[in-house]
Amino acid sequence: MSERGPRLRPPYIAVIGDGEPHGPDAHRLLEWAEEIGSLLARAGAVVVTGGLGGVMEAASRGAVAAGGQTIGILPGADPDEANDYVRTPIATGLGVVRNLVVVTSSDAVIAVGGRHGTLSEIGLALRMGRSVVTLSSWRVESDHRLGGPRVHRARDARDVVSVALRFAAEREVAGPP
Amino acid sequence: MSERGPRLRPPYIAVIGDGEPHGPDAHRLLEWAEEIGSLLARAGAVVVTGGLGGVMEAASRGAVAAGGQTIGILPGADPDEANDYVRTPIATGLGVVRNLVVVTSSDAVIAVGGRHGTLSEIGLALRMGRSVVTLSSWRVESDHRLGGPRVHRARDARDVVSVALRFAAEREVAGPP
Amino acid sequence: MSERGPRLRPPYIAVIGDGEPHGPDAHRLLEWAEEIGSLLARAGAVVVTGGLGGVMEAASRGAVAAGGQTIGILPGADPDEANDYVRTPIATGLGVVRNLVVVTSSDAVIAVGGRHGTLSEIGLALRMGRSVVTLSSWRVESDHRLGGPRVHRARDARDVVSVALRFAAEREVAGPP
Amino acid sequence: MSERGPRLRPPYIAVIGDGEPHGPDAHRLLEWAEEIGSLLARAGAVVVTGGLGGVMEAASRGAVAAGGQTIGILPGADPDEANDYVRTPIATGLGVVRNLVVVTSSDAVIAVGGRHGTLSEIGLALRMGRSVVTLSSWRVESDHRLGGPRVHRARDARDVVSVALRFAAEREVAGPP
Repeated sequence: MSERGPRLRPPYIAVIGDGEPHGPDAHRLLEWAEEIGSLLARAGAVVVTGGLGGVMEAASRGAVAAGGQTIGILPGADPDEANDYVRTPIATGLGVVRNLVVVTSSDAVIAVGGRHGTLSEIGLALRMGRSVVTLSSWRVESDHRLGGPRVHRARDARDVVSVALRFAAEREVAGPP
Repeated sequence: MSERGPRLRPPYIAVIGDGEPHGPDAHRLLEWAEEIGSLLARAGAVVVTGGLGGVMEAASRGAVAAGGQTIGILPGADPDEANDYVRTPIATGLGVVRNLVVVTSSDAVIAVGGRHGTLSEIGLALRMGRSVVTLSSWRVESDHRLGGPRVHRARDARDVVSVALRFAAEREVAGPP
Repeated sequence: MSERGPRLRPPYIAVIGDGEPHGPDAHRLLEWAEEIGSLLARAGAVVVTGGLGGVMEAASRGAVAAGGQTIGILPGADPDEANDYVRTPIATGLGVVRNLVVVTSSDAVIAVGGRHGTLSEIGLALRMGRSVVTLSSWRVESDHRLGGPRVHRARDARDVVSVALRFAAEREVAGPP
Repeated sequence: MSERGPRLRPPYIAVIGDGEPHGPDAHRLLEWAEEIGSLLARAGAVVVTGGLGGVMEAASRGAVAAGGQTIGILPGADPDEANDYVRTPIATGLGVVRNLVVVTSSDAVIAVGGRHGTLSEIGLALRMGRSVVTLSSWRVESDHRLGGPRVHRARDARDVVSVALRFAAEREVAGPP
């Protein structure tokens, strides 16, 4: 937090998950992501994703349909690789490292399903002081008692969004790590 | 360039340079940066910077005063470290590596003055296929004949902006490296 | 795997964990790390760490005392920040991003205790196709059935090392992701 | 430099340049790189490269033939992508960002020929406080008077190595940026 006090800016919420979900849950994960994007936009939040397909595209589509803003943090060097619902593409050229930017640029992180890349983003989010809400995703628990950012396992899209917005508001008070 | 053809999106132009310019030229460099930001905004371009002070702040201030959009790609994890004229802060947590994102997320790059960090950004821009316009900055010349992105030494702010916009348009045709 | 077949090189095993462990388990974690380093060196493995204190230093000390080789992948730009038991310091200048290099440069990863940074390394290891052995560390489980790299919860230092060496050998057969 | 004084470790010298040199100068560049690697090894230096072909392979081959040590900082995730003369492969998974590690892990940097990637490494080296020796490579000059690390244009392989070793020794006194 700078000396001049908090900015009057909207919360940035990352939605992370599989770029090509398959299996029996794929359809449900995409529906959830789209609903989450829509609810975030209606609450005035900016939706940040990795800019590609699957969960990223569904969340962005939901946000844009509700009149919201979307940022896509792309792994490659071509902004036109972004899906059609990314309003502000950021081509990073970072490859795998772009995952760090997705979570650090956000005030809180939502994980919908996801594989190993999503787990790495959950870990990076916590490392950077961002709390995480999961929906049908990873369970992560330490053998030790740790303070700092939190992980909440949500039961549906509304629960996801209300907790994520609360986590984002708390981060603005607590400041960065 | 994706199969569905070029996006109808504004050009993104990076303005790079010293975060704390000093010496006899400092005042002139900041005036140039502000004028460049203003001219870019009037031409409909989005101004991308590293989000901090000096040349980055001056270019952003010029753009905002002319009604334009500004993105700040920050090295740290706190979006509130951005200067007051950044409309879309991207806190990366990348440290030095954020310089790669500043240039890769842009269609062309403008260097105003600058020290070693600016030289590294010029090199990274060319490496990522982005052409560069310099004003009172570095001269870089290869002992060998090379194709690809170009470096133009401009004489004033108007020359900077007109060449940068041309370079950006050419990149959209040529596609990424 | 290149066309010319597997190299005759020793396995590289990363040991990750807290740089400043505290709490009731701290002493035991450091003892484990030192024993693991020693066992790895006696098995002919190269011990890779983040090069700083705590678990990183204990594992390196154990390896060097047993006549082994140690590599330290440092976050900063000064190789002299490495602990005294790092034989090959790699100063990266990458900050947080150096965690990716620690796990990618290794054939398998061992996590001893650890906080959020360690969780991010476990996630990055799996993302990069490296299997992980944990000892008194994080439990990570997906809600979905996933193939690929594995996580093994070990019960003591000997179990850690024997499984990690097996994981490393399997990676060389399977090749990179 | 840590409080306990300088380490007794050999200088690490990076040799950077084109991975696939072509054109009329290609043969000469590779001969220079091999001779430089050989001279560095005889002087007790460790040769650091990006681990792939062309200038990187030639410098590593020269060093190994003279009984020296070589480190290869690879862009990908597979250590077996290293050329046959890399004794310590570091697979980073960083893509373009690995260039930062090549120069930061070294005490001084030698550029032999090279295209845009080499220019970005020269810029990153100076940014990280490493001085650079060039041979038939880029000329970089600032319009402003700058202190800090230096660039020396050498005339042959012996001049390259003697100046690079001097730059490396000066860095150890001066410490990191």
